[in-house]
Amino acid sequence: MENRLRNEELKKRIMEASEAAKFFKKGMTVGTSGFTPAGYPKAVPLAIAERKENGEDLELTIITGASVGDELDGALARSGVLKRRYPYQTNKDSRNGINDSKIEYADMHLSHTPQWVKYGFFGNIDIALVEAVAIREDGGIIPSTSVGNSNVFIEKADKVIVEINTSQPLSLEGIHDIYSPKNPPNREPIPITQTEEKIGTGYIPCDLEKIVAIVITDKKDRTRPVAPIDDTSKKISGNLINFLKKEVEENRLPKDLLPLQSGVGSVANAVLGGLVDSDFENLKIYSEVIQDSALDLLDSGKVVFASGTSLTVSPDRLDDFYQNFNKYRDKVILRPQEISNNPEVIRRLGIIAMNTAIEVDIYGNVNSTNIMGSRMMNGIGGSGDFTRNAYLSIFTTESIAKNGDISSIVPMVSHHDHTEHDVHVIVTEQGVADLRGLSPRERAKVIIENCAHPDYKEKLHEYYNEAFDTCKHKHTPHCIEKSLSWHAKFLKEGSMK
Amino acid sequence: MENRLRNEELKKRIMEASEAAKFFKKGMTVGTSGFTPAGYPKAVPLAIAERKENGEDLELTIITGASVGDELDGALARSGVLKRRYPYQTNKDSRNGINDSKIEYADMHLSHTPQWVKYGFFGNIDIALVEAVAIREDGGIIPSTSVGNSNVFIEKADKVIVEINTSQPLSLEGIHDIYSPKNPPNREPIPITQTEEKIGTGYIPCDLEKIVAIVITDKKDRTRPVAPIDDTSKKISGNLINFLKKEVEENRLPKDLLPLQSGVGSVANAVLGGLVDSDFENLKIYSEVIQDSALDLLDSGKVVFASGTSLTVSPDRLDDFYQNFNKYRDKVILRPQEISNNPEVIRRLGIIAMNTAIEVDIYGNVNSTNIMGSRMMNGIGGSGDFTRNAYLSIFTTESIAKNGDISSIVPMVSHHDHTEHDVHVIVTEQGVADLRGLSPRERAKVIIENCAHPDYKEKLHEYYNEAFDTCKHKHTPHCIEKSLSWHAKFLKEGSMK
Repeated sequence: MENRLRNEELKKRIMEASEAAKFFKKGMTVGTSGFTPAGYPKAVPLAIAERKENGEDLELTIITGASVGDELDGALARSGVLKRRYPYQTNKDSRNGINDSKIEYADMHLSHTPQWVKYGFFGNIDIALVEAVAIREDGGIIPSTSVGNSNVFIEKADKVIVEINTSQPLSLEGIHDIYSPKNPPNREPIPITQTEEKIGTGYIPCDLEKIVAIVITDKKDRTRPVAPIDDTSKKISGNLINFLKKEVEENRLPKDLLPLQSGVGSVANAVLGGLVDSDFENLKIYSEVIQDSALDLLDSGKVVFASGTSLTVSPDRLDDFYQNFNKYRDKVILRPQEISNNPEVIRRLGIIAMNTAIEVDIYGNVNSTNIMGSRMMNGIGGSGDFTRNAYLSIFTTESIAKNGDISSIVPMVSHHDHTEHDVHVIVTEQGVADLRGLSPRERAKVIIENCAHPDYKEKLHEYYNEAFDTCKHKHTPHCIEKSLSWHAKFLKEGSMK
Repeated sequence: MENRLRNEELKKRIMEASEAAKFFKKGMTVGTSGFTPAGYPKAVPLAIAERKENGEDLELTIITGASVGDELDGALARSGVLKRRYPYQTNKDSRNGINDSKIEYADMHLSHTPQWVKYGFFGNIDIALVEAVAIREDGGIIPSTSVGNSNVFIEKADKVIVEINTSQPLSLEGIHDIYSPKNPPNREPIPITQTEEKIGTGYIPCDLEKIVAIVITDKKDRTRPVAPIDDTSKKISGNLINFLKKEVEENRLPKDLLPLQSGVGSVANAVLGGLVDSDFENLKIYSEVIQDSALDLLDSGKVVFASGTSLTVSPDRLDDFYQNFNKYRDKVILRPQEISNNPEVIRRLGIIAMNTAIEVDIYGNVNSTNIMGSRMMNGIGGSGDFTRNAYLSIFTTESIAKNGDISSIVPMVSHHDHTEHDVHVIVTEQGVADLRGLSPRERAKVIIENCAHPDYKEKLHEYYNEAFDTCKHKHTPHCIEKSLSWHAKFLKEGSMK
């Protein structure tokens, strides 16, 4: 514990999670660590849920980095503590609460959240609840497997509660790079010009007096397994890699590409994983989440450096990762999400953004969040931060879902997260649609022809042709009353066919 | 002419517009100056149109800064020369050509266009055709009333043709600040930290050999009159100013606000104009277009500095503006649109973005481009560049259009340009909806209650309530088959009522 808690005075503030939980009062706004199920607080949220289950009247607004583990979102949703949630989530019970109208959820760009905290748009932050591997003598907090918004919560909160997690290796110390831009009108350029550049401190500065409780825990990050890479994902990955090769051949990309960003989850993991067998060398990753495939790419030497805001390793390889973390130490940086997702840095570095879509329409609009227009899946996450500022913005999706009852290519998406103005390339297992420079009419043809599933191609052509023939104004041909009829059909009949 | 053309050798390349027009061949891609009807080439485009009208086979792709005057978009659209157009337009004939499927138009974020030229995404740029007030001895080109993308076209084009426009005052020399970021991976921070900072040269560097033709003209910018400020606009402006006052009172904005961006056109002009009578002082403008109201604000001393990429003054006051330009010289900068619209600079300065919407939906999505989903109006312009990176993003619209047959607040917008993730505040003549931190269900109530026209309020509540009651998943309640029925009704019956 000497190594983990380096200030004598602070040792007096060590307490049980159940004690620390008493700082939380009804109506408070709490900012927590965590970005993906990595580096989120675990012991105190469980103790808070228990208080509620024991009959206490307790409701909280929770702001995180992004998604977190079940001990936080799950336990607080099930117990009814969670009343309001920003800016992202992936937990089954919180999702159900949101879709059942029990939890108010605003789905935000992840680069906006830290600014809003600093601008005061969320009101006062009562408590920052963060996981750490250690606290320095000066109060500086050393995060664990993610940074997310921990630094801004600690900066702005009235009180700080720290969970020191002894399951997280102390060797994580040194991989964080904490930098917090000032608010306008005093903001200065963020001085990153290369993926591997460090510009800040290895810890989050914190006034000693603000730390009101320290809880010691050894609960591991409850990460999610990634699905084995299937044939469809391999085809998507192959199509994407061929597209990148062509861009290099035609001198629109350098030989070693530009820094890669990849969305989170099994498909994204598979897409990135495909690079292990490619001819590309000296790649860099500038992304949010460093997941399994990024580690494989570091292992294989294909990727020479990875910058992110969290390290999420699937349960199978977590122990091995903890034990052998030293081999990654010099090749990895974790930054605050205000930096990992910052438009300034993303546009400067010229990121290749690769994100997954729920559905795409024939004009290139993308739905990333609401199934059938109404049902929140997870959230937009960082996909907008990267897409809008990318050198190249690429969306991947399987061309069908639900065993073919849903076409992922539709006449009009039922919810818009990325507009036609931001989507450069669409990749499915069927092929690639390069939309750059195409008018909506031209895009429709390329998307249907190259990306749609054979079962839906004709129907999509029919929709487009009818729209073109009947529309008086043909810039974006639509039969407006039929544009969402495929979704209505699915909701009624269980199939778009 | 000594002052206008300062290199002896170049004088030999002076020619008639009809001669210069012969450089243009079928299939070429041409980049021109111009951003709003300001600083665009006039004599050569008219000569090109004439060639086509005389029976020559001539088709061109035209890339500009933004909209341009009738001599360019109008003449080339009417003559059939214009086959493909990027990234924005406002001309009646080009708009008709686009909606009639005769011209292919891709509607782009204005900050993306210069990057795409430099990345090679548009292919080769055959000719840069730019208006200038003068050419320096070293070939450096001094733009006139706009910069737009002139600098990147001149940098990348095979040939450069310059129209020296003697109607544009030479006193414009010195107000331009030309800076062109390198391509990734060698891009560096853009060193602007204040609205008034200059970081580049007062001219566009150009190899002497690239200049193949110089045409002397005195055709004035054919700017558009702005509509007189009506009661509705005054109410919108008043509501917006009261909102800003409240933000200052609650310490979410500094007393002298943050740099203002304002969209183009009569409503935007009126909204900005309202600040003349407000209590705000020491304001700055960091925008695209410096139009009439910005000059009024400079005259009144309310605004101390204005940075943009074009100066568009209505026809009435254009002569006066030319004659008295000296009084504005030290208070105005014109930058390339790669800088005026750059996410990096916009987020750093903390811009207050104020743009106009065609329609807004109950969840906060905004349509800025396609009327009834299909009919291109103008384009997204810079509204996305600013909105997404703004400190505060505000959209204004009158609550009804077409004498009340259209509600500007609808269940679902028929085209999405700005998503729920990016729209902070909506202002109509009815009131203000502050959407920050609200879930979709909460947003719907505030938007309907505060912003909708009384004639449509009940109908909107009905839609929302039915959607909430019938939707199984209620994050974003929609009756998917009815969500665009208001538009379908208007198209069929001529009214949403």
